[in-house]
Amino acid sequence: MSQRVREILSWYGSDNPGMLTNLARILNHGRLAGTGRVVILPVDQGFEHGPARSFAINPAAYDPHYHFQLAIESGCNAYAAPLGFLEAGAREFAGAIPLILKVNDHDTLQDEKDPTQALTGSVLDALRLGCAGIGFTIYPGSMQRLKMYQQMRAYAEEAKRHGLVVIIWSYPRGSSISKAGETAIDVCGYAAHLAAQLGAHIIKVKVPTSHVEKEAAREVYEKEKIPVATLPDRIRHIVQCCFDGRRVVIFSGGATDSDAEVLEEVRGIHAGGGFGSIIGRNSFQRAKAQALELLATIMSIYAGNGAP
Amino acid sequence: MSQRVREILSWYGSDNPGMLTNLARILNHGRLAGTGRVVILPVDQGFEHGPARSFAINPAAYDPHYHFQLAIESGCNAYAAPLGFLEAGAREFAGAIPLILKVNDHDTLQDEKDPTQALTGSVLDALRLGCAGIGFTIYPGSMQRLKMYQQMRAYAEEAKRHGLVVIIWSYPRGSSISKAGETAIDVCGYAAHLAAQLGAHIIKVKVPTSHVEKEAAREVYEKEKIPVATLPDRIRHIVQCCFDGRRVVIFSGGATDSDAEVLEEVRGIHAGGGFGSIIGRNSFQRAKAQALELLATIMSIYAGNGAP
Amino acid sequence: MSQRVREILSWYGSDNPGMLTNLARILNHGRLAGTGRVVILPVDQGFEHGPARSFAINPAAYDPHYHFQLAIESGCNAYAAPLGFLEAGAREFAGAIPLILKVNDHDTLQDEKDPTQALTGSVLDALRLGCAGIGFTIYPGSMQRLKMYQQMRAYAEEAKRHGLVVIIWSYPRGSSISKAGETAIDVCGYAAHLAAQLGAHIIKVKVPTSHVEKEAAREVYEKEKIPVATLPDRIRHIVQCCFDGRRVVIFSGGATDSDAEVLEEVRGIHAGGGFGSIIGRNSFQRAKAQALELLATIMSIYAGNGAP
Amino acid sequence: MSQRVREILSWYGSDNPGMLTNLARILNHGRLAGTGRVVILPVDQGFEHGPARSFAINPAAYDPHYHFQLAIESGCNAYAAPLGFLEAGAREFAGAIPLILKVNDHDTLQDEKDPTQALTGSVLDALRLGCAGIGFTIYPGSMQRLKMYQQMRAYAEEAKRHGLVVIIWSYPRGSSISKAGETAIDVCGYAAHLAAQLGAHIIKVKVPTSHVEKEAAREVYEKEKIPVATLPDRIRHIVQCCFDGRRVVIFSGGATDSDAEVLEEVRGIHAGGGFGSIIGRNSFQRAKAQALELLATIMSIYAGNGAP
Amino acid sequence: MSQRVREILSWYGSDNPGMLTNLARILNHGRLAGTGRVVILPVDQGFEHGPARSFAINPAAYDPHYHFQLAIESGCNAYAAPLGFLEAGAREFAGAIPLILKVNDHDTLQDEKDPTQALTGSVLDALRLGCAGIGFTIYPGSMQRLKMYQQMRAYAEEAKRHGLVVIIWSYPRGSSISKAGETAIDVCGYAAHLAAQLGAHIIKVKVPTSHVEKEAAREVYEKEKIPVATLPDRIRHIVQCCFDGRRVVIFSGGATDSDAEVLEEVRGIHAGGGFGSIIGRNSFQRAKAQALELLATIMSIYAGNGAP
Repeated sequence: MSQRVREILSWYGSDNPGMLTNLARILNHGRLAGTGRVVILPVDQGFEHGPARSFAINPAAYDPHYHFQLAIESGCNAYAAPLGFLEAGAREFAGAIPLILKVNDHDTLQDEKDPTQALTGSVLDALRLGCAGIGFTIYPGSMQRLKMYQQMRAYAEEAKRHGLVVIIWSYPRGSSISKAGETAIDVCGYAAHLAAQLGAHIIKVKVPTSHVEKEAAREVYEKEKIPVATLPDRIRHIVQCCFDGRRVVIFSGGATDSDAEVLEEVRGIHAGGGFGSIIGRNSFQRAKAQALELLATIMSIYAGNGAP
Repeated sequence: MSQRVREILSWYGSDNPGMLTNLARILNHGRLAGTGRVVILPVDQGFEHGPARSFAINPAAYDPHYHFQLAIESGCNAYAAPLGFLEAGAREFAGAIPLILKVNDHDTLQDEKDPTQALTGSVLDALRLGCAGIGFTIYPGSMQRLKMYQQMRAYAEEAKRHGLVVIIWSYPRGSSISKAGETAIDVCGYAAHLAAQLGAHIIKVKVPTSHVEKEAAREVYEKEKIPVATLPDRIRHIVQCCFDGRRVVIFSGGATDSDAEVLEEVRGIHAGGGFGSIIGRNSFQRAKAQALELLATIMSIYAGNGAP
Repeated sequence: MSQRVREILSWYGSDNPGMLTNLARILNHGRLAGTGRVVILPVDQGFEHGPARSFAINPAAYDPHYHFQLAIESGCNAYAAPLGFLEAGAREFAGAIPLILKVNDHDTLQDEKDPTQALTGSVLDALRLGCAGIGFTIYPGSMQRLKMYQQMRAYAEEAKRHGLVVIIWSYPRGSSISKAGETAIDVCGYAAHLAAQLGAHIIKVKVPTSHVEKEAAREVYEKEKIPVATLPDRIRHIVQCCFDGRRVVIFSGGATDSDAEVLEEVRGIHAGGGFGSIIGRNSFQRAKAQALELLATIMSIYAGNGAP
Repeated sequence: MSQRVREILSWYGSDNPGMLTNLARILNHGRLAGTGRVVILPVDQGFEHGPARSFAINPAAYDPHYHFQLAIESGCNAYAAPLGFLEAGAREFAGAIPLILKVNDHDTLQDEKDPTQALTGSVLDALRLGCAGIGFTIYPGSMQRLKMYQQMRAYAEEAKRHGLVVIIWSYPRGSSISKAGETAIDVCGYAAHLAAQLGAHIIKVKVPTSHVEKEAAREVYEKEKIPVATLPDRIRHIVQCCFDGRRVVIFSGGATDSDAEVLEEVRGIHAGGGFGSIIGRNSFQRAKAQALELLATIMSIYAGNGAP
Repeated sequence: MSQRVREILSWYGSDNPGMLTNLARILNHGRLAGTGRVVILPVDQGFEHGPARSFAINPAAYDPHYHFQLAIESGCNAYAAPLGFLEAGAREFAGAIPLILKVNDHDTLQDEKDPTQALTGSVLDALRLGCAGIGFTIYPGSMQRLKMYQQMRAYAEEAKRHGLVVIIWSYPRGSSISKAGETAIDVCGYAAHLAAQLGAHIIKVKVPTSHVEKEAAREVYEKEKIPVATLPDRIRHIVQCCFDGRRVVIFSGGATDSDAEVLEEVRGIHAGGGFGSIIGRNSFQRAKAQALELLATIMSIYAGNGAP
C-alpha cells in the first residue's frame, strides 16, 4: 500500500474499514494503482442518449462485454455503469476490475427544464454484483435537486453501513442555470462542494470554464482575485472546494474531442492537482485500439511519467 | 436442452438458477420449444381498451378460459395477462403453459398526454399463480417515465430474488413524442435499450418503422449510415440495441391486420434475427380456427421450416 | 454543575436524562461553561451560499478541520455543520467539542419564492458521529413550511428518544413575507414560538428589527404597547415568546459586519436576556486571530465580565 | 485532549466517532482526566448480593443518589449501575458524570453451579439515560457462557452502531473452575482475552493471583517462564492478553479490604501498566469521608503523583 | 485472471457475482495468486485455547497487528480471525489482504462432551470490516450439531445475498466420536461432505488418518477398496467427498510440528490434489522469520515450484 493511498484513506475517518477496503480496491487497481490518481470508465450514455447516439460510431460497444474488456485492458481503476450493463457481464468478469453501480439514471426522451433521475439500482444490487461502490447523480440547479439530495442521503447511509464507496456525479443543470453556467467555475465549485457536504467519498464534476454564472459569486471571485484564468487554476479551485483536498475529485469531459484536446485537458487537470478523470465517450466512441492508446497516454500523464 | 437455449441462458450470469429455470420453462414450451424463438399470447386488451372493443368481434374471447386454451392449443411459449384473467383459470390450467402476470396496467377511460400505469399485481401474486415471470410496461417519453422506471426497479429486484423472469413492455409514448415517433426506429431502439439497462430479461417493443424522430438521433443514423430501410434491417438494429443480442427481444404488432400483413411482418422479424412475437389482437380477435392456423404459420416461420 | 445550568435543565421535564446530558455537555463546554450562555459556531454557509462566497475571504476555511479548530480554540459551546463537514473531522476531533449535525440543508442555486430544505442527515448519523444534538431549519412563511414542520417532528421524536438535543433554526421566509418582514419583531417572535411549540430544546432566530410585518399583529403590538424600540426590548420579547424564558433561544447575525456592529448586537442580546449567539460568517470569514479575538470579546460580554 | 488519550482512541479504528466521543468523555472526566488511567465506581452489589449485605454497613448507600454523589465528588471517570439505580438519579445528575448502564445482572438467591445473568437493560435505555456506554458481564467457565457471548454480541453490535462504549465484566465462574481458579492468572488472562475478542472496548477482570488453574496452561506458563510471581508481573501479563495493550483493561478487587491492602493492589496495577480500577465495595462500604480519602489516594497513585 | 481461477469460479453457478468477486479476491491475492491454491492464516487460537497457550511461545503474537503483518508479508491468500482481532487492525490494514470474519467461536474453559460454539460476529460486521467472507465452525458428531447447521444456514443465506464467501470449518467432535475418530478418513470425508451440502464455498477439514471410525463405513471402505493408505490417497478421497472436486477444500494441521513434518504433510496435500492449507499454530507460534520461511516453502510446494 503506497504512502499516498494511505494518506487518502486517512481522510475518511468517519467511515468503516469496509468502505476503506473498497476505496483501496479502486485506488490500487490498474495502471494508476498506488498513485492516488484515478481514471474510471463510465458507460451510462446508452441510458442517457440512447444506444445509436452512443454506440453506432463504434458498433462493438453495443456489446456490454466490450466495456468490461476496455476498462480491464486499458488498466482503468474502475468501471461504472447502470444495472443492465453490469448484470450482463458481472459473472464473466467477476474479480477482474472494481465495479461501480450507477444507481440512478436519466433518459433524454423528455427534455425537462428541471430534470431529475430515476432510481434504477439498489445498494443490495451493488453488493450482489460485487461492486466496490455506487454512483449517484445530482442536478444542483434543478427544481428537483432537493429531492435528489434526499434520495442520495438514504442511499449513502445504507451504502456506508455496508462498506461501499459513494460517488456523486454532481452536474449543475436546470431552470436557474444557463447552458454556459453548467460548467461555470462558480457553479462547478459549488456543485463539487455540495457533493462533499452530502457525504460523497469521490466527487465527479465537469471540467470548469472561467465563466462565472451567478452575480453574488462574481463579486467574490473578483474581489478575492480567485485565479480562474487557466485550467490548472480552475482545477486547483475545485480541489479547494472539495474540503481543501480532503476528498477525491475527478473530472469528466463530455462529447468526443480530438486526442489533442483530451490530452490538453488531462494535463491541466494533472497540473492543477485533480485526482483524475472519468472518460466515457472519449474512450468507447473511438475504435478500441485508439481508445487504448489514448487511455494509456492519459494514464501516463497522471502517473507523472510525462507524455508524448 | 438445446444448444441454443443453453446459449441464451448463458447471457444471464447475474441471475439465479431460479430465474434460469423459469426462462427455460418458457423457451422449452410449445411448438417453438428449444429453438430459442418465442411466441407469447398477451391478453391485456380488455383492461387497455375495454371488453367490447376487445372481444365483441369474437365473443368466445370474453371467457378467460378461452385464452388459456388458445395459448395451449396453438403451442405458444407463454400466456400473459392481468391478475383477473389469470386468477380465472390458473387452477384449471395449472401446469399446462407458462404464465406471465402483467403487474401493471392502464385503461383508456382517460386520455392522458403523459400516461403511466397502475400497479395491479405483485410478485407474490405471480408466485401464488404459478407464473414463470412478470410483465411490466414502461412508457419512455412520458413525463411519468422516471417514476415508472423506479417502480419497475423495485419489482425487478423482488422478482429476480424469487427466481422470476422479468419482461418489460417498452412502449414509447407521451408529450415529447409524435404518434409516428412511437414506432420510430430511433425511439424504439432507445426504448429497447432502456428496458435492457433496467434489467429486463425479455424485452418487448413494437415493430419499428424507418422514421427517425429525434434530431440528435437523425444526425447519427445518417452519419453512421445505420441501415433502417427494410424491416430485417430495423429488427437487426433493435437486437443490437438490446446488448448486441445478449437479451431476448420480441415484437408486437398492434391492431388487427390481414393474415398476409402479419406474416410479412413475422418474416421480417425472423430475417432480422428477432427472437419472436407477442401476438394479441391478431390472435384472439380472429375465430379460433383461423387464429390457430395463423399462429401455426407464424411458428413455422420462426422455426425456420419455411412458410406458405 | 452550576446553579444556572441546573435551572435550565429543569425546564425540560418531558425530556429524558439522555437529552439533559447532551444539553449539559453543550452548556458546560468552552469559555461560557456553566454560565447558561451559549455561543455556537455554525458552518453551513458552504452548502447555503457555495464555497467561494463562504471561504474565499479566508481560504484556510476551505479545510473542514479549520472549523473544528476554530470552535475548539475559541471555546465555543458547540460546532454545528452538515454531514460532510462533520464526517471530515469527527474522528480526529472526537471528544474535543460538542457537535451538532445539521440534518437539513438548502442551496441557493435555485431561488425559490417558497423554499424548503433537503433532508441531508439522519439521527443515526448524529449518533455515529458522536453529536450532542441535531439542527433543523424551518421556514415559517413558506408555502412549504407545514411539510417542513412534519419532517421536523419525525426527526425530533427520534432524536429525543435517543437522547439528542433538538435545535431549530427558525427563519421566516417565503411568498407571504416581505424582505423586511423576515426580521420583523412580530414575525421573529412568531417564528421563535413556533419552534418552541414544535418541541425545540434550543431555538435559533435572527436578531429582530422593530418593524412589524403583519397587520393583525401590528394592532396588538400597538394596543398592548409591547416595547420593541431598543434591541434589549426586542430580545426580551423574543425570550418571552419562547415560553417566557423556559426555552433556550439564541440569535444569529448574518453577513459579515464590523467588529463594533457585532459587539453592539451582542451587548443588546445580553442586556435583553438572550441566551447567546450563533456566529458563523462573522467568525470564519475573519482571519483566525481576529476571529478568536472577536469571539473572546463576545464571550466575555455573555459571561458578564464587561467588555472593551 | 492529551497525547495519551489520543493514543488510546487510535486503537479503536473500527469504531465510529460516536464511540470515540463517549470513550473520550470517560477518559477526560474526573481527577484522572487525560492521564489514560481510569477509576470507575460500580454499584451492582445490591442486585448481586442484596441490599442489606451491600449497604447496611453504610446505610447512606441505600440511597441511589449517594452513589452518583460519591462518584462525582471523588472524581471517578464514570459510574456504572443497573437500570433502577441509574433511573433513580439520571435526571438530577444529568451531565455530571459519564454513566455506564449495566445491561445484564445476576442475583444470588439461587446458587447455580453454572450461572448466567438476566438481560436487565437495553441499548435504548442507555441512550435515554444519557450513558456513555454499556456494561455486560460474561462468565467464562460456566456452561452458560456461550449463550452469554451471543447475547453480548448482539448488544455490542447495536451499541457500537449507536456510538456507545462497550465494557465487558469478564468473570470466570462455573462448574469447570475451582474457587481459586476464578482469579488464577491463566484463567484471568484467558477471560480478558475472550472479552477483547468479543469486541469489548474496555475490559474488566479481577486482580489475578499467581495460581495457574488449568493443566494445559500450566505447561506453557512454566515452559515459557511467563513471570507471574509479583502483582506487577501478573498485571503486565493481563495487559498483554488484552491485545498487547491495545485495549483498556481495568481491575476490580472484591470484598472490602483494609485501605493498606487496597492501595497495595493499586500500586501493583499501576506498576504493571494496568489502566485502572473499578472499585465498588471498597468505596461504598466505607463511610463517605473515608471512601473519598481512599479514592483520592488511589487516583493519585494512578496519576503517578506518588502516594502516601 | 488465470484459467484455473476461472475454472474454480465456474463451479459456483448458484452464487451471485458478488460472491464470485470476493472468492476471486481470495484466489488472486498473495504468492499463490492465480494458481487455484490457497493458504490462509487463521488466528482464533486465542479464543480457543487462551492467549498464553497461543502466544507465549512468540510474544509478538499477542499484538493483533502482528497477524495482519504476518499474513501480508508471507503472501497468504487471506487472514481469518474473530471479531476483536479484526476490529483491532481493520482500519490500519484496510485493503492490504482479504479478511475472513470468524463468526462463531468456542473457548475451552469448559470441556463439554458435546460442544457447540457461540455466535460472536454477524454478516453486517463482516461487511463493515471489509471482509471477503465469513468463517463458521460446525462440530459433526456433537449432540449440538443440528442446531449449529441451522445457525450456519441462516448466516450463509445472508452472507450469499450480500456477496460474501462462506467458509465452513468442519471439525468432527462430540460424544459419538472417539478421539481417533475426529481425524478418521470416513469421518473427515463425511464432515467435508456435510459442509459442502450445507452450502459452503470453501471447506476446511483436518488432515485425515487412515483410521476408519464407523462400522457401517468400514464395510464400504473395505468392500469398495477405497484407497486410504497414503496421505495423497486420503486427500484425493476428501476432494472426492467435496462434490468430486467442485468445491475448494483446504486442510489444517493442528498443534505445532517440526518444519519437516509440516512440509511432508503439505506435499501430501498437494500430491492428493488438495487446494491448500490453513496454517495457524505452525505459523504464529514460530518466530516471524522462521514462520515466513516455512510459509514461503509451503507456498512454493503448492505453486508446484518444487521445494527444498
